[in-house]
Amino acid sequence: MRSEAFWLVLVLTLGQTVEAADNPRSQPLTMSNLLAGSKPEDWRALDPENTLYLELPAGRVVIELAPSFAPAHVSNVKQLAREKYYDGLSIVRAQDNYVVQLADPNAEKPGLARKIQHARRTLPPEFDCVITPEVPFMRLADGDVYATEVGLSSGLPVARDPKNGKMWLIHCYGMVGAGRDAAVDSGGGTELYMVIGHAPRQLDRNVTLLGRVWKGIELLSSMPRGTGALGFYEKPEQHVIIKSVRVAADVPAPERTLLEVLRTDTPLFKELIESRRNRREDWFHFQAGHIEICNVPVPVRAASSARKTEERK
Amino acid sequence: MRSEAFWLVLVLTLGQTVEAADNPRSQPLTMSNLLAGSKPEDWRALDPENTLYLELPAGRVVIELAPSFAPAHVSNVKQLAREKYYDGLSIVRAQDNYVVQLADPNAEKPGLARKIQHARRTLPPEFDCVITPEVPFMRLADGDVYATEVGLSSGLPVARDPKNGKMWLIHCYGMVGAGRDAAVDSGGGTELYMVIGHAPRQLDRNVTLLGRVWKGIELLSSMPRGTGALGFYEKPEQHVIIKSVRVAADVPAPERTLLEVLRTDTPLFKELIESRRNRREDWFHFQAGHIEICNVPVPVRAASSARKTEERK
Repeated sequence: MRSEAFWLVLVLTLGQTVEAADNPRSQPLTMSNLLAGSKPEDWRALDPENTLYLELPAGRVVIELAPSFAPAHVSNVKQLAREKYYDGLSIVRAQDNYVVQLADPNAEKPGLARKIQHARRTLPPEFDCVITPEVPFMRLADGDVYATEVGLSSGLPVARDPKNGKMWLIHCYGMVGAGRDAAVDSGGGTELYMVIGHAPRQLDRNVTLLGRVWKGIELLSSMPRGTGALGFYEKPEQHVIIKSVRVAADVPAPERTLLEVLRTDTPLFKELIESRRNRREDWFHFQAGHIEICNVPVPVRAASSARKTEERK
Repeated sequence: MRSEAFWLVLVLTLGQTVEAADNPRSQPLTMSNLLAGSKPEDWRALDPENTLYLELPAGRVVIELAPSFAPAHVSNVKQLAREKYYDGLSIVRAQDNYVVQLADPNAEKPGLARKIQHARRTLPPEFDCVITPEVPFMRLADGDVYATEVGLSSGLPVARDPKNGKMWLIHCYGMVGAGRDAAVDSGGGTELYMVIGHAPRQLDRNVTLLGRVWKGIELLSSMPRGTGALGFYEKPEQHVIIKSVRVAADVPAPERTLLEVLRTDTPLFKELIESRRNRREDWFHFQAGHIEICNVPVPVRAASSARKTEERK
């Protein structure tokens, strides 16, 4: 009955598009069966006030900001977006299996560097923060090479150290951070990088992560790699120009990309994790029995209002 | 003295290009310092008989085959290459954060499917093999979410289960495998996939891995993603045509890409792993203290004979 699926779910972590099958409970525990049986309350809509649209010539990248983990950086990046600081800047770097970076190509050139109005150029780092009960945490039982505890917090990959009471975001594929120079307080959001390779976990707690790409990461990950050191483009004409970066709340409602992300604090999500530890799809011969934090998929779909609008057409 | 570096080392795992610095022992334990102090015997040249050149319109991808882990598949893929089976086939699939796949777009069309002469279309799976002392294994002390033991074997990421005496290759970035259908014995090398995303470890022991890309992975990872299910291209004109696949030994010597890979069974490599567990470069504020198997870089450089030839010019 796959052809009768009534909506598509984009699973960004694995980049897989799966179709929902109906009558899920008669079928094996697979992600597509579980999603087919999901209820509206299993999903959450992105908050337009904490969502960025990075507009590239090839299309829109949707980033959810993470104020619970990097409040000052999130506030500053929104201010920079509202000042139109990013508009006309460039993707200056694409390093294979690592990151794509947005920056001012003239940042080092006196007189040419993009001016800042009310935002801050640099901020103290927000490499980690204090564990608080207000920030949800779905712990993964599978362990981790780098951290004592890992899990998900509203769809974001998080590590925790109960000994020192700290938590921090993890550099999984699609995470967004604030580039910095050698000084830990030299970042602030004027340069943003997006992870496009195997999780560079050595960066955890070394750079401020401030959000996650929920849609459009492939527009960044398929960019030609820069041939200079660290993947910087060697010629200005290789730069991809940023059309704009906008806070979704500032974009007229009809132009918004309405997304819903599967909630990660639900029984359904626990079942989904189990369905990925032990894959029940026919193709799988061997069940891994474990899952690594950056391999946990967090499904995303067009918001129900967007789906209804489409159905009406 | 970075400008006096006389060769560039390509570090494929992290995609970083690092320059060698001289006088390494007076400097902190970093990968570039260690490589600058490396001796010729720390490196090994690729064996032309176990190296494939995948020739794309954008350039050459160099793949080292792994006969110690998948002898039948390696033998069959070489036979297929020598029959020119792959020449004119296509990259039919590019799934973000997952794999790029080479296949015959007409495989399912009677009369149009590429013929096989002496090679096999399918083979029994080589998902794992018996641990033997002849196959070197540098165990990583850091542990792993999926396997009891992980480490490196001649530059390849390997997992082992001492309980059942088996070992197998790991799906890290840049690994190459033989695509298959639902039946475990339906692969054989007529379809090859290359990992271009966060290590999809759920595939370990589910597909036969047979080699690793040492050069040119960025030509694959930067391909536009397919918009069909599983990242398949929806239109034939989106396919990237394979110019040829050749065993390096069959290519005239002057046209070969001479590479040396850092040996992974040496004291130097142990130091390199330590330099990546705890990063001593100025930029790093926090030392991770651990490293995950797919984050271990294995340096590659132009072979010394190629370097000497260039110097003579």
